[in-house]
This record gives sequence, C-alpha cells and structure tokens, in this order.
Amino acid sequence: MAEKKKLVQAITSMEEDFAQWYTDVVVKAELVAYSTVKGCTILKPAGYAIWENIMHELDKRFKATGVENVAMPLFIPESLLQKEKDHVEGFAPEVAWVTMGGGEVLPERLCVRPTSETLFCDLYKDIIESYRDLPKCYNQWCSVVRWEKTTRPFLRTTEFWWQEGHTAHATAEEAEARTVQMLNIYADFCEEMLAIPVIKGQKTDKEKFAGAESTYTIEALMHDGKALQSGTSHNFGDGFARAFGIQYSDKDNKLQYVHQTSWGMSTRIIGALIMVHGDDSGLVLPPRIAPTQVMVMPIAQHKPGVLEKASEVRDALATAGVRVKMDDSEKNPGWKFSEQEMRGIPLRVELGPKDIEAGTAVVVRRDNHEKTAVPIDELAARIPEILEAEQQAMFDRAKAHLESHIYDALTYDEFKDTVANKPGFVRAMWCGDLACELKIKEDTTATSRCMPFRQERIGETCVCCGKPAKKLVYWGKAY
Amino acid sequence: MAEKKKLVQAITSMEEDFAQWYTDVVVKAELVAYSTVKGCTILKPAGYAIWENIMHELDKRFKATGVENVAMPLFIPESLLQKEKDHVEGFAPEVAWVTMGGGEVLPERLCVRPTSETLFCDLYKDIIESYRDLPKCYNQWCSVVRWEKTTRPFLRTTEFWWQEGHTAHATAEEAEARTVQMLNIYADFCEEMLAIPVIKGQKTDKEKFAGAESTYTIEALMHDGKALQSGTSHNFGDGFARAFGIQYSDKDNKLQYVHQTSWGMSTRIIGALIMVHGDDSGLVLPPRIAPTQVMVMPIAQHKPGVLEKASEVRDALATAGVRVKMDDSEKNPGWKFSEQEMRGIPLRVELGPKDIEAGTAVVVRRDNHEKTAVPIDELAARIPEILEAEQQAMFDRAKAHLESHIYDALTYDEFKDTVANKPGFVRAMWCGDLACELKIKEDTTATSRCMPFRQERIGETCVCCGKPAKKLVYWGKAY
Repeated sequence: MAEKKKLVQAITSMEEDFAQWYTDVVVKAELVAYSTVKGCTILKPAGYAIWENIMHELDKRFKATGVENVAMPLFIPESLLQKEKDHVEGFAPEVAWVTMGGGEVLPERLCVRPTSETLFCDLYKDIIESYRDLPKCYNQWCSVVRWEKTTRPFLRTTEFWWQEGHTAHATAEEAEARTVQMLNIYADFCEEMLAIPVIKGQKTDKEKFAGAESTYTIEALMHDGKALQSGTSHNFGDGFARAFGIQYSDKDNKLQYVHQTSWGMSTRIIGALIMVHGDDSGLVLPPRIAPTQVMVMPIAQHKPGVLEKASEVRDALATAGVRVKMDDSEKNPGWKFSEQEMRGIPLRVELGPKDIEAGTAVVVRRDNHEKTAVPIDELAARIPEILEAEQQAMFDRAKAHLESHIYDALTYDEFKDTVANKPGFVRAMWCGDLACELKIKEDTTATSRCMPFRQERIGETCVCCGKPAKKLVYWGKAY
Repeated sequence: MAEKKKLVQAITSMEEDFAQWYTDVVVKAELVAYSTVKGCTILKPAGYAIWENIMHELDKRFKATGVENVAMPLFIPESLLQKEKDHVEGFAPEVAWVTMGGGEVLPERLCVRPTSETLFCDLYKDIIESYRDLPKCYNQWCSVVRWEKTTRPFLRTTEFWWQEGHTAHATAEEAEARTVQMLNIYADFCEEMLAIPVIKGQKTDKEKFAGAESTYTIEALMHDGKALQSGTSHNFGDGFARAFGIQYSDKDNKLQYVHQTSWGMSTRIIGALIMVHGDDSGLVLPPRIAPTQVMVMPIAQHKPGVLEKASEVRDALATAGVRVKMDDSEKNPGWKFSEQEMRGIPLRVELGPKDIEAGTAVVVRRDNHEKTAVPIDELAARIPEILEAEQQAMFDRAKAHLESHIYDALTYDEFKDTVANKPGFVRAMWCGDLACELKIKEDTTATSRCMPFRQERIGETCVCCGKPAKKLVYWGKAY
C-alpha cells in the first residue's frame, strides 16, 4: 500500500501554491527523499536516472571538444583554499570543516570542497611546464558541499551533484574562447535535450563567481515567472595562475602565466526541468532526456492475448531504440495512468482487447494529453516520430512562455511596477554602477540576471539613476 | 620537456624492487598524481579513463540484474553511525569528522561516509512498508573516506572511489542468493574484462565486514605472489534491520524484518590490473578494458603519403569499433614506442614508407612484444582478432601464474617454510578457532584470505594446532 499512498493523493495546484506544487512533484514523482542529514537530500532511482542521462549527454559533448575526466580529492586544506583572496572570501563562510581524522585532531583543518579551483590550480602548477603541455582541459563529476540554512530539493541543498570543468591555456584569447564554447554547450544542451530555452549573457561584477574576471551564464524562466541560473562558465584570466604560480615556458623559452577557465552545471538543472515543463498532474519530461519514454499499458490484462500483444509491442519498441517499459501490475488502469503522468513519462500506449481486435493502440502524449489511434504494426515506426514531435512542442511552448514574459522598462516606475505585477524578465538599461544594482534589489527584490550577449539599446539612460546607460540587463526574481 | 622527463627515465625493475616498480608505473603511466591533501590521490585522465570503463561495464551488469542507482548524502550523523554496534566499532576509528559548517560549530558531528550501510538503512526504514516494496536493490557510485596512515595509490588511500550496492529482501534465502550473485558478477567481470583469475570464497569471522553475518570475497594473486582482496559481498541477515527497525508486512499482514546485503568494488582493482599484468616496460592493459586499444604510429611521417595512410588506417579501425589513436607528435619513433608501452596500450601499428610500399603494416602486441605483418587493407578485420587473442593470452598467463603459486601445507613447519620462501597462496586445513588464525598471522604475517567455495579435505587436522579440521583455507600475505 506504501506505493499507493504516495501517488494517489492529489498534488497541490501550481496556480494555488507553486512552491508546494514543486515539493509535491519532487516527492510524489519519487525523484528525491529528504535525509536525516540536515540540508542533504537523497536522489532516488527516478531522480538519479535523469541525472545519469544528463551526465551521459553532457560528457559526450565535453569529450568531443577534447575534455578529459579526472577525480580530485574531496578535501581542501585551509591554506590552499586561502591562496586566492576573492575566492576564499566568497566560499569560506559556507564550507564544512573536517577537524578530526583517524581519531586525532588534525594539524590543519580541511574543508569539504565547495568547488575545486584551488585543487586544480595546485595540480596544474605541478604538471604544466611548457607550451607543449597546454591546453589542459580537465573535468570531474562529483558532489560538492556549501552550507545552506534552508533546503529545497535540487535548488538549494547543502550537498549537490555537478560537473566542474577546469582548463588552462597559453593565451587570454584561448581562455575566452573556451569560456564561451562551454557556455554554448550548456545552452545547446538545455535547448536540444531539455527543451528549455535560455538567455545567454554575462553576469555583472556583483553576481560573478568569486575570483573570476568574467562569468557567463544561461538563465531560464520557470513557469511561475522566476529565473533560474542554469549553468555558468568563468574566465579567470591569469588571476589564479599568479596566486598559485602556474607558469609555462613559451616557444621563446620565456616564462608566462597560464589563463584559466572553469564551468559547471549541477543537479539544479533538474529543478528547471520540473518547473519549466511540469503541470498539475505532475512531472513532464522531455522525451530525449526521459529515462523511460513510453509506458505500455495492457488494459483488461487478464483477458487472453492482451499481455502477449502488449509484450510484443514493448519488445518491438525496444528494438526500435525506444526506452520502454510495460506496467502489468495489478493496479487498475486509471491508477496506472496517474502514476505514469505523475512520473512524467512522455507517452503511454493503451492496449486492450478491443484495440487488439481493431488492430490499433491508443497513444497518449503526456505534454498535451492528445490521443492518437495508431495501427499496432506501425507503432515502432510512429512512436519515435511522436516522441520527437512532443519534444519540439515542449520546446516551442517553453519558448513562447519565455518570450511572452519578457518586459521592457524605460522608467523606474515602470520597472518597479513590472517586477511587482508581471512575473518574468524585465529588460532595462543600466549605468554599470553597483549602487543602482543594490538599490534595485533593495526596492524590488529583483537581481540582475545577465547582460545578454545580444545587446540592444532600448534607452539612453540608466533605468534607476538616469545617468548614461552602458548595458542592457535582464532583471528578475530568481531561485 | 615536462612530458619527456616523466617517461624517459627507466623504471625500476620489478624483480629488483616490486614496490618501487609499482610506484614508478603508477606515476609514469600518468594514472595518478599525489595531492597536497595527505593520504589523497588524484586520478589523472589515463587513470580515470580505466575507472570509467570499469564503471560502465559493472554498471551494465548490475542493471541487468535489476539494480537501480541512487545518490546518498556524503555525511553520516554520529548517532546514525552508532546504531549498529559491530559496524560502528569497525569504522569509527578511521573516519573523518566534520565539526563545523556554515561558520558554526555543529550540534552533532558528522562523519564523512566510510561506507553507507547506515544511510541506506535509514532510507529503507522509511520507504519499505509492504512485501510489494521488496526487493530494493540500490547502488551508488561515489568516493568514501577511511583515514590511513600510509598511502599507496589505488591500494591504500584515505579517499577512494567505488560502488556500494545495498539490497533489502523479504527472505534470508533471497538475501543469500543476491550476495552470491553479486560475488559472481565481480568474479566474472575480473576474469572476462580484466583478465584476472580469482579465487572465490568466504571470509573467516575475523576478516568479515563489520556488522555482516558472512562476507564473500574474490582474491587475486599479484605478480609478486601477494594476494589482493578484489571485491566483497556481504550478507547482513536481519542484523541491521533489527537495529534500524526495517520491517515490512507480509502477505498475511504480519510484520517481518527484511534481510539485507551489501557489495562493493573499488579503484583498488586498478592496483590489481597493474600488479597482475604489468612488466618492466610499464603498464599492460587487457584490450577489453583499455581506454585506447591501438596506437597507430606513422614512421618517417614527414615523407609524402605516410600521415594520410596512417589517418586512413586510424579511421578504418575506429569504424570497425576499435578504440584507436594516432601518435603524430614530433617525437622519434623509439620514444613514441616507449610511451605507448609505458601506458599499456595493447597494440601499436607501425606504418612507414616501406610498409606502405609493401602494402603491409607491422602490428606489435604489448603483452609479449610479438610482431605480425598484416596487409593494410586487412587491418580493420584482423586487429579485433589480435586484440581478443591478446586478451585471452593475458588471462591464460595470469591463470598459469596463479596455479603455479598455490601450495598445499600439511604440517605447520611446511606452512611456515612455504610462507617464508614461496610467494603465493598456501592452502591448509583449519580448526575454525580464532586463536590459530591469530597465531599464524603472528608467526608468519600471512592472513586467511578465504575459505574457498570449492572445499577439499587435504588433511584431517588443523595445520596450526592439530585439532580436527573444519575448513580448507587459502592463506597468504596480502596488500
């Protein structure tokens, strides 16, 4: 009965209480369990399977650009963390400290990595000597720890899972090109695989990564109109190289500092998947990333021939490369349908005695509940097309939602009114001063999300102070 | 020059100093780097790529038996670790303690997981209610921390990478079957993929896992005659279930305790790969697990047509499914060959102007240095066969080495003499008493490796005390 209890209760409507809806989906789609460890969650099989697919696809895209995977230590000695001033100031307040090991108090405390720039620098310092050793493009898949006071599964947890890429280059130009290249990989991945349209841009100095010269970001818009930073790529210039002494001898045998980048995407992106595509029936997964794409549902399965035909259909779909399962449990069909919908499985194929007699099955799309009768012997050919159509429709819908929730503000009154009343992004001109950024946050709770790569001039003066404008900025309330 | 310095120096001969040979290979094949974090190593790209292949293959085999992956927290609260008495006694002395987080002293200290039985139990307690929820077969890929005073890459490090599977079953029989099933998966994986023959058996009570009813193990023999425990599978009975209160209602609606197992294989197995197959030229990787199986070596590559032909060969091999690279660096061929040998790449294909004229290439096997002239247009067909032959030969060689290093001892003098003078396993009868096990270790430094599943009676009395014998045991010095 445990299984049933979890799924039968209706979830909170998203219009009524979006935050509660989110929590309900995360728990009832069995993506996550809360653990006894404060701030830490468990990724259950359904949640981890999504992460596995994300890892697999991103890893392939990274390796195609020459990235190699490594595994770095979990711990960072305090003295190493302190080597780059801005970096330690950014992270020290939120780290966990190991002070005892093997029954003894440690001579130097170790932090559990919140990110691994310092460890990679420490390695690069040792293994880079000549221009022939460059570039180095390493990545690792791991979990990191940043102490949090509140917990929201995927969005804000003390421990989270991610990849962190760290590269070292001979020139500033190469480092800049790599920073942009990786941001583009994240953007393409989000759009192509997750059906999530994103805005690409640069973070302001206030919002950039601790120790970076510049941080690039992709920002996505959730169903409730809040923004979610979905992946970042940082150009460090030679700042870390100078702090750690990472030098190479160039072709003229002169010592030069390397230029570095780092870039990361985390399990946070699963939060985006849920909040961009989900609905009041639960999770809606884009077919390309869904661990199970199709659930075959035998109807009246005790009747002769039904289970056999359903199994045949399942096998034919599997052979066609579809990730398919069959639900032949004893639950009633309505129940099974609700479960499949809650779990976000993109298609179900209903197959009962009458369907078999008629030689057709009913295919139901998760995203729009559209039903199509498909001849049974055409299922293996048609279903991959229907999955692709669903993927495209989900992207188009998310894109339309994004575009219809971007507002231009030319005056500060208009800006404040928009932030207060229209969930979404507000585009406005900015003078570049921290003071205005802080005032805007203070007045509206909106933060600068990014200075988009595609700059336009929608006005000549800063929306906040009226001084000459330097940049167009996307502002918004954010997760 | 950094690159060259690392590889050009000759490594220590394995006959001269096996421990130094091992360290040389690990460093010069660029598998591992030592980190500034005491006891922790870095898996460099060449080392991590082996681990990726191991993970990929094991994961596939696990999933084929219904195992699902999850991700559990990195931390275990002290009170949770203490719930099972034997378990905490086994692990508490070697854990790392987090005592501060987010700038504050924690109300309860957290250990960095040394293994995750307690976390899985804590989850299972919540999600198992009915017999319908069973079995649960979860696994995770992660790193764990056990404080070590000495460091040997792959063999003994404070942090290491592994998988840990944790299952819960309705009956004792099912748990026992799963324990054996997973041990067999490890054994088959070692023999089929790593070309490492193993002895399967049960650990004595002294050597079993802290909290287990029984521990099964696979033991491999290294080139120097020492044993390496290469994978273990534990049956917990209902001990953890009683400590954590993990109960389900059976078909008659009666509450029952679950029966549990856990099983793990770690990066330690890479140490076995090195020490079973390596030679004085460096690493020797079995083709099925090697990240790069073939290195194409253009000779006199400045001459017209050489690089073109070599690229064609590389592309044809890649198309045939071979993991192939081409070394077209400016180094001289002797140098390139040494590097390829040091890195353990199973085959090289030498291709120079004369070869091209004659329409043949020279294929050189890493394991036995055997050279074969193969018509260039037959390479794509022949090389997969040569790789398979090499895989088989490596297994046969390791198997012959194992079998020729197993000795039977009928008296204690014979036993002591064998341990002292003949590296390998000693088979001897044992009365089952801890006292004899301790005495043997004290007298000889040999430990009981396992009570093999294939029991024989090679005598009637314990080799140590002369009392009636209960079990045949494999003894040996071990890593």
